[in-house]
Amino acid sequence: MRTEKKLEELGQVMVNEIKKGDGPTFETTLRTRSNTIYDEAVGCLRTGDKKETRKFLSVAQARTFMQTVAIAAKTKQFLTEDLHTSIRGLFYQLKFTLGEDLDEDLFTEQTESNQLIEDLEVALKIKREDLNLTTDRKGFVAGAMAIRDKFGGEETTIDLAKQGRSGWSIPSDVDNGMEITSLDADYVLVVEKDALWQRLNEDKFWKKENCLLVTPKGQSTRGTRRLLRKLADKKLPVYCLMDCDAWGWYIYWTIKTGSMNLAYLGRDFAVPESRFLGVTMSDIKEFPFLEKLTIKAKDVDVKRAEEMMGYPWINRHKDWVRELKLVLKTKKKLEQDALQGERLTFVGEYIRKKIDNKEWLN
Amino acid sequence: MRTEKKLEELGQVMVNEIKKGDGPTFETTLRTRSNTIYDEAVGCLRTGDKKETRKFLSVAQARTFMQTVAIAAKTKQFLTEDLHTSIRGLFYQLKFTLGEDLDEDLFTEQTESNQLIEDLEVALKIKREDLNLTTDRKGFVAGAMAIRDKFGGEETTIDLAKQGRSGWSIPSDVDNGMEITSLDADYVLVVEKDALWQRLNEDKFWKKENCLLVTPKGQSTRGTRRLLRKLADKKLPVYCLMDCDAWGWYIYWTIKTGSMNLAYLGRDFAVPESRFLGVTMSDIKEFPFLEKLTIKAKDVDVKRAEEMMGYPWINRHKDWVRELKLVLKTKKKLEQDALQGERLTFVGEYIRKKIDNKEWLN
Repeated sequence: MRTEKKLEELGQVMVNEIKKGDGPTFETTLRTRSNTIYDEAVGCLRTGDKKETRKFLSVAQARTFMQTVAIAAKTKQFLTEDLHTSIRGLFYQLKFTLGEDLDEDLFTEQTESNQLIEDLEVALKIKREDLNLTTDRKGFVAGAMAIRDKFGGEETTIDLAKQGRSGWSIPSDVDNGMEITSLDADYVLVVEKDALWQRLNEDKFWKKENCLLVTPKGQSTRGTRRLLRKLADKKLPVYCLMDCDAWGWYIYWTIKTGSMNLAYLGRDFAVPESRFLGVTMSDIKEFPFLEKLTIKAKDVDVKRAEEMMGYPWINRHKDWVRELKLVLKTKKKLEQDALQGERLTFVGEYIRKKIDNKEWLN
Repeated sequence: MRTEKKLEELGQVMVNEIKKGDGPTFETTLRTRSNTIYDEAVGCLRTGDKKETRKFLSVAQARTFMQTVAIAAKTKQFLTEDLHTSIRGLFYQLKFTLGEDLDEDLFTEQTESNQLIEDLEVALKIKREDLNLTTDRKGFVAGAMAIRDKFGGEETTIDLAKQGRSGWSIPSDVDNGMEITSLDADYVLVVEKDALWQRLNEDKFWKKENCLLVTPKGQSTRGTRRLLRKLADKKLPVYCLMDCDAWGWYIYWTIKTGSMNLAYLGRDFAVPESRFLGVTMSDIKEFPFLEKLTIKAKDVDVKRAEEMMGYPWINRHKDWVRELKLVLKTKKKLEQDALQGERLTFVGEYIRKKIDNKEWLN
């Protein structure tokens, strides 16, 4: 069902409740930690089945209820107008309409505003991108892929093999009005840092290897996660090259299983098939020059490694446990940038060898 | 003179000093605050003429001296190999060579590593991009401009009018191997936030207005500043739309005059011709709906406004003083996103009106 239709039905149900003399209600799925489960069959985090019903005729819930309905009304309007805006743009639209009733702190992107939008996403089984809301974008792609992009009333086809040093910037929404029209790649390589992506792009690694070269540029945006899911759906293996530290592991596991706080997005934003190529502390055995390029692990790295050993979806993987224990034992970490220490072009050789020999962590 | 040649000469001078039985020295320009001046004739911050000579045969300077020479040697090698890397990549190359002598803390991008590279930039009158060092990239452009990009042994031409929702990502280096091959625009519009850039891109504002639509995505990277300088050199007016707050003002003044800590880059990275279109607290008079979309100024905004009134290159502009006083009086601020409060498409109308009526702050 189209998103506009879903929003209309949401309103219709409330109107009917009012007509019957009842107070309107809004049902959504609980996004609490206790209702977040690891779906073993699929291999990703998702919300469970516990529901929550909010009532307009409740002193505690009236204000939030009203705001949720206002967001539904505004985004319905954006869809009708065929215009997009950010959460901040939505905030000002609501502030214009609701005026003093709207507290700025309630609507800063990092805090409760997300909650209200997430309520709608979960209740209607849609993504915020389907509501014409744009989110932060960050990642890049290079490779033999073409994208047809319908946007602002125009259509353009972008050849991701001809973007020079810049690459193609992964937009906020890779579903609506966007289509992969051609794709010739054997696999997807995800490199944590833009700097290393640029290094590999300069070496034309994606051309030599017939792969798609992707960087989330740190933690993945929603757009990057969706794109990786779409590529995995096309049966491309997804290999990830991250730092061997708290942040690198987190970036990888967010791609693979999703993250706790965005678990409600489920498999649509997760790639359980993805594989961790490196870097790992074990790499030192094979490439001894890396030994003197390790650096001292920070407290956050040690703490994170300990935490990860407690997650059932991680500690079931013996290879991961072995690597995490190695970090805890040596109290050292290794950055992906270190692969350039001896020769700038070594990075590509390292990746090729890892893939050829199937040396990855699952 | 080419950068490689300059690096060679730097080494040759040192070799000659050693042959003469002297200890080698390295002369650079002082980048202290006391040697930072506002160049009134040009309209930007730059370093003065005070020099500093560092000696190898000095207990206090030997280590830094050695590292500076090591950086010169390594980057010379990058140029010979025709390969690029980041400062982090350079760090690992040095660590591989110098081993334990290299302290990680000395080389985190934010701290002293920059100092050593800046020494070289200033001493040789080059940019770090000329040393094949990549820096963080962030901004985007859309409009009737084509770029010829020679990179990684290949050449590609990118049409910035055909990049769909993504736009063209401004790379780290817009000089070496990069050329503007066609350009048909009446002016450049710089919009602080990517979200608003996307809004205007969706409205095809750049097409309707025949302008280049640029976002630095917050504070400008070096690449964005260089690109804006190059566009201003082509006699295009540069109009900026920022938040009316501490951060927005800082972003604008960095584009216009450069910033204190990067003053050594001088006019090559500054656009004294740029104009501040808005948003301003005065906008409320003309567009009363903005009144209820103002938000409380934070301490940092008030403090920054007070500081700016003390800068001679700012307080000479009566219009700026008037605006800053208005912020100090009302203790309110206004975000550019607020322009979308009444109608999403109002942003474009606002910009057109401001430019048509020459309503900008200089």
